[in-house]
Amino acid sequence: MRRLAIRLEYDGTDFSGWQVQAQGRTVQGVVEHALRQTTGQPSRVIGASRTDAGVHAEGQRAHFDTESDLPTGQFVHALNYWLPNDVAVLDCREVDKDFHAQYDAVSKLYRYRLLLSPTPRPLRDRLVVRRGDELNISAMRECAEALLGRRDFTSFASEHSEVKNKVRTVLRSHLLRSGDELHYLIEADGFLYNMVRIIVGTLIEVGRGKMTVDQSATALQARNRSAAGPTAPAKGLVLVSVCYAENGATP
Amino acid sequence: MRRLAIRLEYDGTDFSGWQVQAQGRTVQGVVEHALRQTTGQPSRVIGASRTDAGVHAEGQRAHFDTESDLPTGQFVHALNYWLPNDVAVLDCREVDKDFHAQYDAVSKLYRYRLLLSPTPRPLRDRLVVRRGDELNISAMRECAEALLGRRDFTSFASEHSEVKNKVRTVLRSHLLRSGDELHYLIEADGFLYNMVRIIVGTLIEVGRGKMTVDQSATALQARNRSAAGPTAPAKGLVLVSVCYAENGATP
Repeated sequence: MRRLAIRLEYDGTDFSGWQVQAQGRTVQGVVEHALRQTTGQPSRVIGASRTDAGVHAEGQRAHFDTESDLPTGQFVHALNYWLPNDVAVLDCREVDKDFHAQYDAVSKLYRYRLLLSPTPRPLRDRLVVRRGDELNISAMRECAEALLGRRDFTSFASEHSEVKNKVRTVLRSHLLRSGDELHYLIEADGFLYNMVRIIVGTLIEVGRGKMTVDQSATALQARNRSAAGPTAPAKGLVLVSVCYAENGATP
Repeated sequence: MRRLAIRLEYDGTDFSGWQVQAQGRTVQGVVEHALRQTTGQPSRVIGASRTDAGVHAEGQRAHFDTESDLPTGQFVHALNYWLPNDVAVLDCREVDKDFHAQYDAVSKLYRYRLLLSPTPRPLRDRLVVRRGDELNISAMRECAEALLGRRDFTSFASEHSEVKNKVRTVLRSHLLRSGDELHYLIEADGFLYNMVRIIVGTLIEVGRGKMTVDQSATALQARNRSAAGPTAPAKGLVLVSVCYAENGATP
């Protein structure tokens, strides 16, 4: 038995998210199907992040156990042969038997893409959320930077979030202008359910002048979901990368 | 009666090309439908380029006549309201009554995107053609530059091309490296049926070492489709822009 870790890219548009469900096409489901086709045996694939329906990934990580002694390079080719066009395995490495893609993750980095354009731009429609209005970018930037550090993010978690401890440490939180797009980058040691999308929804409220920077800070202190802005659409969000401690288990 | 000119962006993936056909969803068809919804009257929409099935556009141009006196800015909003997510009108201007989007075009610029990657990259899958093999880029570049100038492109036109005069002037023909992609840019005063895709198919043959630069030059001189390389897939191709003479009619 070997444990292998893979890095995945996917276009989340046509998936009901990462996690296998009773109904609906899921990334975990198609990867497990490809794995079974490749090795002839069922394996559970554990992802670092259970991305929501419509959320994309450039660098999702996952691990699985297999009896197969196929070289890792051939695993990449075989899995991609069986995978549909909207998911691909970028690399595959053998890891320690106790490596865990989710529990060993030290931090995750997400990017949210806002397109600032008066008209739709179909070539990017699957990957960006468009705003046709004028946004106060410096106020949004101030609001983004105020999230850095160790904080209770109850206000920025879905009410359906089931975890008790809502304290997370945000290592990076900034807005970048990239041509006609605004990219929000956030890295944290963990994320609550819908956390990035609620933060972006709040940043947009600040950008539109519907909420001040002070009010967004107060919203965080309120520890109450209703104090923050709406949940921004899933399609602008991409899981960029997952970081692991630098040891032998790093995939 | 006014003549209006529009600029369009579209993701060609789910279209049977620009031109209205007996069957199949076409860009011209959905634009004419949106126009009819907007003005209440049918209008024929004439495009600068009849892009093939699967070919995209960042800057297609088209014109139409209308009795409507709706301001051009409101035309943009109304058309985009009725258009599906994979087509958008970027702008709209009133032009001279004798302006013709196709006949008045002085040149067109296309880009073909090759992704150089050992694995698929799903987030770009709709817009690039992937090559996992090693390509000799300097040989491809030499081949691309040899196409500049006024030449008979019979060898680089589909046998289904119906035009008699196959002489075209290529104003720009070069390969650019952009990260993990190779972009072929070609601007010409006109293009034959499948011309860019056959040129790219030939460049790839040269890059793979299946054809020398000299052989590609001989292929051009042969004035015979079978002398050139295969037709590269449609999905890598995008119509970037259409140029018009700088006069009052420029949309």
